[in-house]
Amino acid sequence: MNQREEYPSLAHLSNQEAEELCQQLRRRIIQVVSQTGGHLASNLGVVELTVALHRVYDTSRDRLVFDVGHQCYVHKILTGRNGRMETLRTFGGIAGFPKPAESKHDACIAGHASTAVSTALGMAIARTRLGEDYRVVALLGDGSLTGGLAYEGLSMAGQSGEPLVVILNDNGMSINASMGGMAQYLAKQRLKPQYLRAKEIYRKVMGATPPGRVLHRGIHRIKEGIKASLLPCEMFEGMGFQYMGPVDGHDVKGLTNLLRYAASVNGPVLLHVKTVKGKGFRPAEKNPDDYHGIGPFQREDGKPLGSRGTETFSARFGRALSDLAREDGRVCAITAAMTAGTGLTDFAKEFPDRFFDVGIAEGHGVTMAAGMAKQGLIPVFAVYSTFLQRGYDMLIHDIAIDRLHAVFCVDRAGLVGDDGETHHGLFDPGFLQTVPGLTVLAPASLDELTAMLKQAVHKIPGPVAVRYPRGGENHYQEDHSGPAACCLRQGADLTMVTFGTLTGTVLAVAKRLAGDGISAEVIKLNQLTPLPVQEVLDSLRKTGRLLVAQECVDMGSPGQGLLAAAAAQGVTLRGAVLCSCGDAFVPHGTIAQLRALCGLDGESIYQKAREVTGHGS
Amino acid sequence: MNQREEYPSLAHLSNQEAEELCQQLRRRIIQVVSQTGGHLASNLGVVELTVALHRVYDTSRDRLVFDVGHQCYVHKILTGRNGRMETLRTFGGIAGFPKPAESKHDACIAGHASTAVSTALGMAIARTRLGEDYRVVALLGDGSLTGGLAYEGLSMAGQSGEPLVVILNDNGMSINASMGGMAQYLAKQRLKPQYLRAKEIYRKVMGATPPGRVLHRGIHRIKEGIKASLLPCEMFEGMGFQYMGPVDGHDVKGLTNLLRYAASVNGPVLLHVKTVKGKGFRPAEKNPDDYHGIGPFQREDGKPLGSRGTETFSARFGRALSDLAREDGRVCAITAAMTAGTGLTDFAKEFPDRFFDVGIAEGHGVTMAAGMAKQGLIPVFAVYSTFLQRGYDMLIHDIAIDRLHAVFCVDRAGLVGDDGETHHGLFDPGFLQTVPGLTVLAPASLDELTAMLKQAVHKIPGPVAVRYPRGGENHYQEDHSGPAACCLRQGADLTMVTFGTLTGTVLAVAKRLAGDGISAEVIKLNQLTPLPVQEVLDSLRKTGRLLVAQECVDMGSPGQGLLAAAAAQGVTLRGAVLCSCGDAFVPHGTIAQLRALCGLDGESIYQKAREVTGHGS
Repeated sequence: MNQREEYPSLAHLSNQEAEELCQQLRRRIIQVVSQTGGHLASNLGVVELTVALHRVYDTSRDRLVFDVGHQCYVHKILTGRNGRMETLRTFGGIAGFPKPAESKHDACIAGHASTAVSTALGMAIARTRLGEDYRVVALLGDGSLTGGLAYEGLSMAGQSGEPLVVILNDNGMSINASMGGMAQYLAKQRLKPQYLRAKEIYRKVMGATPPGRVLHRGIHRIKEGIKASLLPCEMFEGMGFQYMGPVDGHDVKGLTNLLRYAASVNGPVLLHVKTVKGKGFRPAEKNPDDYHGIGPFQREDGKPLGSRGTETFSARFGRALSDLAREDGRVCAITAAMTAGTGLTDFAKEFPDRFFDVGIAEGHGVTMAAGMAKQGLIPVFAVYSTFLQRGYDMLIHDIAIDRLHAVFCVDRAGLVGDDGETHHGLFDPGFLQTVPGLTVLAPASLDELTAMLKQAVHKIPGPVAVRYPRGGENHYQEDHSGPAACCLRQGADLTMVTFGTLTGTVLAVAKRLAGDGISAEVIKLNQLTPLPVQEVLDSLRKTGRLLVAQECVDMGSPGQGLLAAAAAQGVTLRGAVLCSCGDAFVPHGTIAQLRALCGLDGESIYQKAREVTGHGS
Repeated sequence: MNQREEYPSLAHLSNQEAEELCQQLRRRIIQVVSQTGGHLASNLGVVELTVALHRVYDTSRDRLVFDVGHQCYVHKILTGRNGRMETLRTFGGIAGFPKPAESKHDACIAGHASTAVSTALGMAIARTRLGEDYRVVALLGDGSLTGGLAYEGLSMAGQSGEPLVVILNDNGMSINASMGGMAQYLAKQRLKPQYLRAKEIYRKVMGATPPGRVLHRGIHRIKEGIKASLLPCEMFEGMGFQYMGPVDGHDVKGLTNLLRYAASVNGPVLLHVKTVKGKGFRPAEKNPDDYHGIGPFQREDGKPLGSRGTETFSARFGRALSDLAREDGRVCAITAAMTAGTGLTDFAKEFPDRFFDVGIAEGHGVTMAAGMAKQGLIPVFAVYSTFLQRGYDMLIHDIAIDRLHAVFCVDRAGLVGDDGETHHGLFDPGFLQTVPGLTVLAPASLDELTAMLKQAVHKIPGPVAVRYPRGGENHYQEDHSGPAACCLRQGADLTMVTFGTLTGTVLAVAKRLAGDGISAEVIKLNQLTPLPVQEVLDSLRKTGRLLVAQECVDMGSPGQGLLAAAAAQGVTLRGAVLCSCGDAFVPHGTIAQLRALCGLDGESIYQKAREVTGHGS
């Protein structure tokens, strides 16, 4: 493969060349991800599909819209980024998701699921309205179809009549199995008698068409043949799509021909492609879930490199919830297609009847929890902070108005590292505080998580959220849960307030400041909403200076709330500074790099503390 | 009808009695709504269905879960609230939506669409898990099926195996027509040859079954007959539902029999019922859209009582957007099933190719806008504040990360009056401020709306929101748009800050205070995010006292932001007060009643202003 930043068009590749390219790409993906970590199985699954797409579409003009864009590595290699793939998901390097700022070949942001059809429809409408002639294709994969947004998009796209191609990359549907009725429905499509009868005709048509440009001449001749060979899917056809499938997603020649046909249709087309996750790398084919998002590994056998690491907040959560479930039969767990990610694998095994995977459907997860809570269960919904954004309205409408007792375990709160902009959990303090009656807890250590989860499940009435970070390394070890806020260190010159992940850092800064003769009081917030303002104001009346260190955006942050409380209660500050993630999106990188970027590392906080106490440089 | 608060079981009603009851109920609904205003057409459409439900289910135990609960009037009449129906939607009176706090017969909150299946599934799970034996039935209507949440719920409910009945009240799908592919798909179900063939068998079975309790004896005998007579609907059956329909929703006898059968099935059932909106009241049958949500009217001919009222913000928005669209072909309008409500009726007629009704699918509306904006259009999405909560994640992920220029016209911002808790627009200042790069404007007058919409469309880069209230009466008339904040009145003792709807009130209070010798400066915020803090802080440095009057919840409000800015910049306040809607939900009533309740009426603000300036009682 050419290591220079060239991206020759694949339009004129022969079928044999295309097949060879697929083998090269597969090796390259394994090579890169074994070094960098990232999403392996899904990318190995779309090698042929991506090559076929690039034979048919010019992604510098045509819009290739990914859905959950972590299956974009092949696309990135083919569009001038091969030489930089070793920087994948590293600070300043290639992003793990499509990123328009990185390349004109990346049509849009795609980190959250089920967005592609809606985006593609908007693009197709713009194309038609502005009289342009590029083509639009949406690539859905990994269970995106379990999200209602995909259905909303499909329902309108089918009716729109807009020429656009939706590719359903069906690899068994989603990160986890059992993704609900739609998965079953699609699975049944494959078992229809017509499918078996049609297979042979289909093979003939797929196999017989001439490759490359020659096809265009014969296209009308074979159109009818293809039409006849493809199966109807009542739902998609009813919605207005010309449905084709299911077809073999690893037959690059057949796929290319079919895509050429699909691109020529003057209306919406849905192409249902069957792929195998991890295709071509045996360990990943065998256990695709283990190779979904992974760290660096040995190329020979797929075994992970590096140590197993310390206990994570997610793992502790799962363990603590199982303990609570053993004691109380009302406790149930909900996940949105993130069983392993949220630490619920063991819970699911031990309590299969009390474990509910709703698919990539966070809104439904929240509303279902409302129904469960209303009728006497204690639902605990473990969900990543960034994905809970999808359930904001349901939190207000279905949970909060009726003051239902449901617990939301907000995992991946704060910076998440290499997944970048689309995945950081920086907004939950801001949006959760607006929900009336919701209590928000923020454990700083694993033991605090255990204690606060118990509090949330058994002591606090109404809805409760418990937010905690990704991973578990280098965090604070103590347990000071119980009060809404606790003073970890007394001081006279400066009140430093923090919560969660930054507690250890802030304590270390306070010690360093003591060496400079600056006496810093450290208050840890255990509860973010309602905000325990009195504890902080009492300290501020003494010190007159405030520094808040918080891993979230400024707007709507606890720091802002504390400042507002100080002003409202007439507490005059001689100095105040918020160390936070500002009001912009934070890119990908290691947590340490991103904290330094945001001024949330120990050194930055130390300097700010010196400045605010009049010891600045 | 018995006017006392009795609710006799309908279980033993004969078919003839049930039919007579339906006629009484229909008259009663017309009588009530002609006086109180409210939702007419949808309630007239579900008279027979609701009576049939109450013949089969005991809603004090069984859970009847409404979806968009404005079709709950018949249910309220039948469950002890008939005598209070004249208080419908009035302050302290019967709510226009199901409300558990009002009656044990109301299973859950239901003001936003597409929630019922998720809620019902959660309830069914709780029932099974806790070993109880009540039954759960979800009633979807008015286009709830266009929302992805309904699909998420259906997909999981079908697979769950939980006994529950989902009734799809199909009255032509939604408030507006053209609700996308799913509507078409369902419409096609009715045209199938099997349907026509099966109709006769179906009629026989529906007609032949004995009424009331007698049915139970014969139920096994007829089960197979009913099964055979009902039509499969591939999608729902594929999802795991036993599908029945479509059936006549105005045949109370047939519906009762079918519901009895459905309630006996040990698994999920989907019953597809065809109803006619406005059934039995000719003006409403003829123009159901005009009788969706209405004011008081003449019972004889359906003509509205009272004057037409002044121009609304929604109407002005529609007119202003049409003006902009005439000048610039890139300007497009999006609505989520609220064409008339958002003032877009004329736009839709004049620019049919640039008008997009996405159905009750706000998330999709936002993401589609992202696609349109990315490819060069200027999408303007007019959406009620409370419903934009559904699009919060899409605003962050699809719009803001890529800094796309899309305009969100946030209608019904602030208190909306008689729709109550579920419909007030009190959260948008809080959740919108967290979206990086989003500019939020708040016109106070119709002319400011025109000016700010133009600014939003043509001058401000990136995403912009323009928020404005329901109605248009008694609002401020001036145009001080342009700067982010403007000083409307100078003063030395107190800085009063407000925006939007309360501007006129605050100015009047300032004048009244002048009579008391209190000199109040009035600053009107035209922009809420980014917050124009310097203008306010300059004033505070002079007056030392702050009063913010804002029609939103406290948390995340502009008032909090101003207080935080004052503290951060060391501006000492001798007094500060936020007049707002607190941090709780606000019930239904007139705007004036609700403002008084929240302390946002002129008198309350005046008293607070006196207190904060040391003139309190």
